[in-house]
Amino acid sequence: MDKYESGLQVREAVIGKEASQSVSDSLADIAPILDQKTLLAFEEAKTRDVLDMKQREIITITALLAQGDTSSQLRIHIQGALNVGITRDEITETFVHCLSYVGFPRVLNAVSIAKEVFNKR
Amino acid sequence: MDKYESGLQVREAVIGKEASQSVSDSLADIAPILDQKTLLAFEEAKTRDVLDMKQREIITITALLAQGDTSSQLRIHIQGALNVGITRDEITETFVHCLSYVGFPRVLNAVSIAKEVFNKR
Amino acid sequence: MDKYESGLQVREAVIGKEASQSVSDSLADIAPILDQKTLLAFEEAKTRDVLDMKQREIITITALLAQGDTSSQLRIHIQGALNVGITRDEITETFVHCLSYVGFPRVLNAVSIAKEVFNKR
Amino acid sequence: MDKYESGLQVREAVIGKEASQSVSDSLADIAPILDQKTLLAFEEAKTRDVLDMKQREIITITALLAQGDTSSQLRIHIQGALNVGITRDEITETFVHCLSYVGFPRVLNAVSIAKEVFNKR
Amino acid sequence: MDKYESGLQVREAVIGKEASQSVSDSLADIAPILDQKTLLAFEEAKTRDVLDMKQREIITITALLAQGDTSSQLRIHIQGALNVGITRDEITETFVHCLSYVGFPRVLNAVSIAKEVFNKR
Amino acid sequence: MDKYESGLQVREAVIGKEASQSVSDSLADIAPILDQKTLLAFEEAKTRDVLDMKQREIITITALLAQGDTSSQLRIHIQGALNVGITRDEITETFVHCLSYVGFPRVLNAVSIAKEVFNKR
Repeated sequence: MDKYESGLQVREAVIGKEASQSVSDSLADIAPILDQKTLLAFEEAKTRDVLDMKQREIITITALLAQGDTSSQLRIHIQGALNVGITRDEITETFVHCLSYVGFPRVLNAVSIAKEVFNKR
Repeated sequence: MDKYESGLQVREAVIGKEASQSVSDSLADIAPILDQKTLLAFEEAKTRDVLDMKQREIITITALLAQGDTSSQLRIHIQGALNVGITRDEITETFVHCLSYVGFPRVLNAVSIAKEVFNKR
Repeated sequence: MDKYESGLQVREAVIGKEASQSVSDSLADIAPILDQKTLLAFEEAKTRDVLDMKQREIITITALLAQGDTSSQLRIHIQGALNVGITRDEITETFVHCLSYVGFPRVLNAVSIAKEVFNKR
Repeated sequence: MDKYESGLQVREAVIGKEASQSVSDSLADIAPILDQKTLLAFEEAKTRDVLDMKQREIITITALLAQGDTSSQLRIHIQGALNVGITRDEITETFVHCLSYVGFPRVLNAVSIAKEVFNKR
Repeated sequence: MDKYESGLQVREAVIGKEASQSVSDSLADIAPILDQKTLLAFEEAKTRDVLDMKQREIITITALLAQGDTSSQLRIHIQGALNVGITRDEITETFVHCLSYVGFPRVLNAVSIAKEVFNKR
Repeated sequence: MDKYESGLQVREAVIGKEASQSVSDSLADIAPILDQKTLLAFEEAKTRDVLDMKQREIITITALLAQGDTSSQLRIHIQGALNVGITRDEITETFVHCLSYVGFPRVLNAVSIAKEVFNKR
């Protein structure tokens, strides 16, 4: 199994098969290189030591929240966070904790997306 | 002990007595309200459930890295991360993990500050 | 009357009863702490000296415009600006003034939201 | 022909007559000064030396991508890029090149808008 | 008196003769067009109605704070705010008000620059 | 020659041997993975079609300017831009062109770094 196949397995496990396929489909005819690069990123996240997938998904949703204009990615990675075993309360508290550092708008945007994702499951 | 005293104890435990005093001193004659508000933020971080201080400091340094233009705060919270028991490798790996989400400049800035903090201890 | 009740009165006066209720409703089952914190922020805005509510709403819509990815909050605070007595021309001119500091995209986004809010009233 | 008329010709040539008219229409009753200023910006882009319109549109879509929360402007300037002779592959590769500097979310947002624009033509 | 001369008078009145000359000097051999454009921006700020110079400087320092990575410009415009009659307390309170919208790092950066400017006068 | 060696040759050609070595040295004991990843990024920039290195460096310095808080990287890539044959006037004009899209602060920061780099050569 090469790095891309291994990355695909990780991506499917984290964000779900459907979302993973949707990423591939959306990039297939315009920028397949980006699809391949996300596979490598997931493969690396899995194989590198020091942090586990739960810690990594917490870091990911924090980086997305703090950066702003990342609603599509936040939607995917809030799903990912739940899929790797992070609880709804932990996700929400992660966003609440960010309030001191980024202010209400970024936090309320993220909470609103979390609510939408939680309601769909 | 009121919330401010309790917050001061947490702030001293996390960022160190010296840095805590330096925050107070720098704000005393211009905006003491901000000093008080940081104390409440630390008190709340300690007393709220769901996430522990190690998780919170990882979230904090991620939010600072992703936002950009936060070198002073990153310096303080990388110290804070070490003080609550996060290892150097975990801090560095947190920054490396952010690469996919924010790109090299934000990550290299944060790594450069981490290196400076690590070397001083 | 405690700080939360007082904050609720201010929030209702600034952003309107409907929007205020909508904030509470949207956060009630996921992060009520954020609702409470916005109440404290409004209470503080009202009771702190030096700047009046008109100045504060001008500052708020400027901070939202400059930060980006804040359309929901801008919508609410453009309403708030009108409610505390700022004219449509003052709101628009605030955004035009920001052009030199943030460029067209942020300004055009904010003007577009202002137009939508103005048309609804 | 004054600078505004000349700017209008350039704007129509770059972003298309329809989009140009739409910018004017949307600003006419709220902030016509911003419409005039965009005309001057296009006029200047055309008449200043050193960079040609193709280089300028590449720079523009890069600045929009990197800044975030610029989907409306990106949509217009991806059209503009195509209109001045930049190929679809060059636009996509510009976005792919940005990955190292801004990370996946900004790049995927821009690629998604590019795809939408390409499909409409 | 043309627009540039008029703009120079405004710029000198707002940010001070020394800072105004320093802007011109720093841009003279690399991008004099940017110096001219700042003159036009100051001239326009003065001649456009609806907002006065005190309101405009409050808006300016807010936009700079919220955007981040603007320390040089903040230094100049905190001076400008004082020069057009805004008090130190109003400047500080403007920054404190922004806390809810942008979080501690941006606010503490701005307060730190304000303190430096206040101490120099 | 593997991808890392090839990437090193490109990095040395673009940003100069000294700066390339300095990147490696600064990351060697804290995050060598980031050094390796920059090598792959340079290798890819060279080998991928569609855009040449001059176009890529223009895109790079634009993305850095627009993002903010990237002074170290801007310094390196303004050097890189000159090394691949972009003229000083083209660099400055790239920054001037960005004014409409990001405002004065980001542009003046970048011009100030360009001036510093130009003066050193």
